[in-house]
Amino acid sequence: MKVRIFEVGPRDGLQNESEVLTVEQKIQFISLLLAAGHKDIEAGAFVRPDKIPQMADTKNLLSRLPSAKNVNFWSLVPNERGYQDALASKVKNIAIFTAASETFNQKNINASIDESFERFKLFVPDAKKRKIKIRGYVSTAFGCPYEGKINPKVVLKVTERLVKLGCDELSIGDTIGVANPTQVHALAKKLLKIAGPKKLALHFHDTRGTALANILAGLEEGVRAFDSSSAGIGGCPYAPGAAGNVATDDLLYMLSEMGIETGINLKLQVKASEFVQRILGRKLPSKYLQAALATP
Amino acid sequence: MKVRIFEVGPRDGLQNESEVLTVEQKIQFISLLLAAGHKDIEAGAFVRPDKIPQMADTKNLLSRLPSAKNVNFWSLVPNERGYQDALASKVKNIAIFTAASETFNQKNINASIDESFERFKLFVPDAKKRKIKIRGYVSTAFGCPYEGKINPKVVLKVTERLVKLGCDELSIGDTIGVANPTQVHALAKKLLKIAGPKKLALHFHDTRGTALANILAGLEEGVRAFDSSSAGIGGCPYAPGAAGNVATDDLLYMLSEMGIETGINLKLQVKASEFVQRILGRKLPSKYLQAALATP
Repeated sequence: MKVRIFEVGPRDGLQNESEVLTVEQKIQFISLLLAAGHKDIEAGAFVRPDKIPQMADTKNLLSRLPSAKNVNFWSLVPNERGYQDALASKVKNIAIFTAASETFNQKNINASIDESFERFKLFVPDAKKRKIKIRGYVSTAFGCPYEGKINPKVVLKVTERLVKLGCDELSIGDTIGVANPTQVHALAKKLLKIAGPKKLALHFHDTRGTALANILAGLEEGVRAFDSSSAGIGGCPYAPGAAGNVATDDLLYMLSEMGIETGINLKLQVKASEFVQRILGRKLPSKYLQAALATP
Repeated sequence: MKVRIFEVGPRDGLQNESEVLTVEQKIQFISLLLAAGHKDIEAGAFVRPDKIPQMADTKNLLSRLPSAKNVNFWSLVPNERGYQDALASKVKNIAIFTAASETFNQKNINASIDESFERFKLFVPDAKKRKIKIRGYVSTAFGCPYEGKINPKVVLKVTERLVKLGCDELSIGDTIGVANPTQVHALAKKLLKIAGPKKLALHFHDTRGTALANILAGLEEGVRAFDSSSAGIGGCPYAPGAAGNVATDDLLYMLSEMGIETGINLKLQVKASEFVQRILGRKLPSKYLQAALATP
């Protein structure tokens, strides 16, 4: 069995860390990820530099990334303005995002779910024409910090709209880390009917320790792509000090022990995670990383 | 569905912490566990006080525990000498331990697996006559720090011997936290044929972040009892600084979100874990605990 790991550390991870890395540090981090074998790396975001200083150097970063065969570098694009900047940077892969919770979407990007689709319509058709690959994120698909439980029907509807819009792949996210395996089994089964295993990725946060169990539930349903963040960087804005994105290290350990191929070398992944941990200067949430660093 | 959580924090957890709690602190910890609804608590060990100072007060502790209806307090008993001390303390439940790895057993208790059974024969029949309940631990059932992978046949054989010896329940342990869900599926299926869901417990360590995924695999096979430690206390002697026992908090969160009954109140469990974290004075490995303490 093969599983695709989609590394979100350099964007989703670093965007939520208070420490802002230099372009040189990011290049070093991404180079270590490439050495480990990563083929999908979310590298930057075309967002407002005054609002998100962690991503302010995206244009510069993308222009200096090492060329790598068969590697997709992804950039987050929130709106048409960001899309124009992305085009100027000659990106080949963009990610757009909306949510399954109206309240969350409103607070996160100041738009209703419908309004976020209005924004997409301003640039997604052009991206399609240019054969730019598009990833669609659905946030708060398993629970919302404001609304609590989310109706799975809404998740399915939003996902379907993103498919119809032309997204090449979908990433359905447990933004605050509240999902449980029973819920994942039920939702993944339905999502796969809309998106299929080549299009669908699940994006779990390990805020309450359940991410790998949720991934296992997804795997058992037939999901074959998962997002993760080196060393678990990123944290959780809704529970400061708690864990956020599931750690690539932990995910990779579990998958490789299960005999599942990912094309990523765990020892080299640890080098990348160790590098980030050194820069951020604190013990990061990946349990595998801490065990690996503690044993000779 | 109902699942039994067996709390090992006050023994397995505290025994592996460098800080030695006072009897008063242990009583307070155990009282908080009782308030949360725990019915099985591993409270002490009749081991050499010079070797394991963390457990030196077991006799005193047991004599002062609050009386609690339908609660089993368990004590670890390594040999006949310990058994005599346990008898003097009028224990009703004892735990004995051996391993699936010869090298581990030799290094851990200076005995071959056969020799550990010779030791059991010196006191287990007497315990049976007195209707003392006996729990048999099998360490390193999923991997050994010295031997690496463990032959499942050896695990099954050792488990079978413990059943024949008269153990009322078995706890099959991933002592160093290397198990993966595929392995758990395969082994749990076979273990259940030997021990059955009323006798079998699985004991996972979260050293590499996979404990809840392994528990999910066990659940799916029909295992209905799991060991865990409040806040994940205990650490891993083979990877200092890494996580050890799976955290009761994380396990409880996952199970309750899955709609599985445990009889334990998660909010009150957090009180017990928070108490221990305060005493140990460091951020403990439970991710749920950290999230709960970070959110109002």
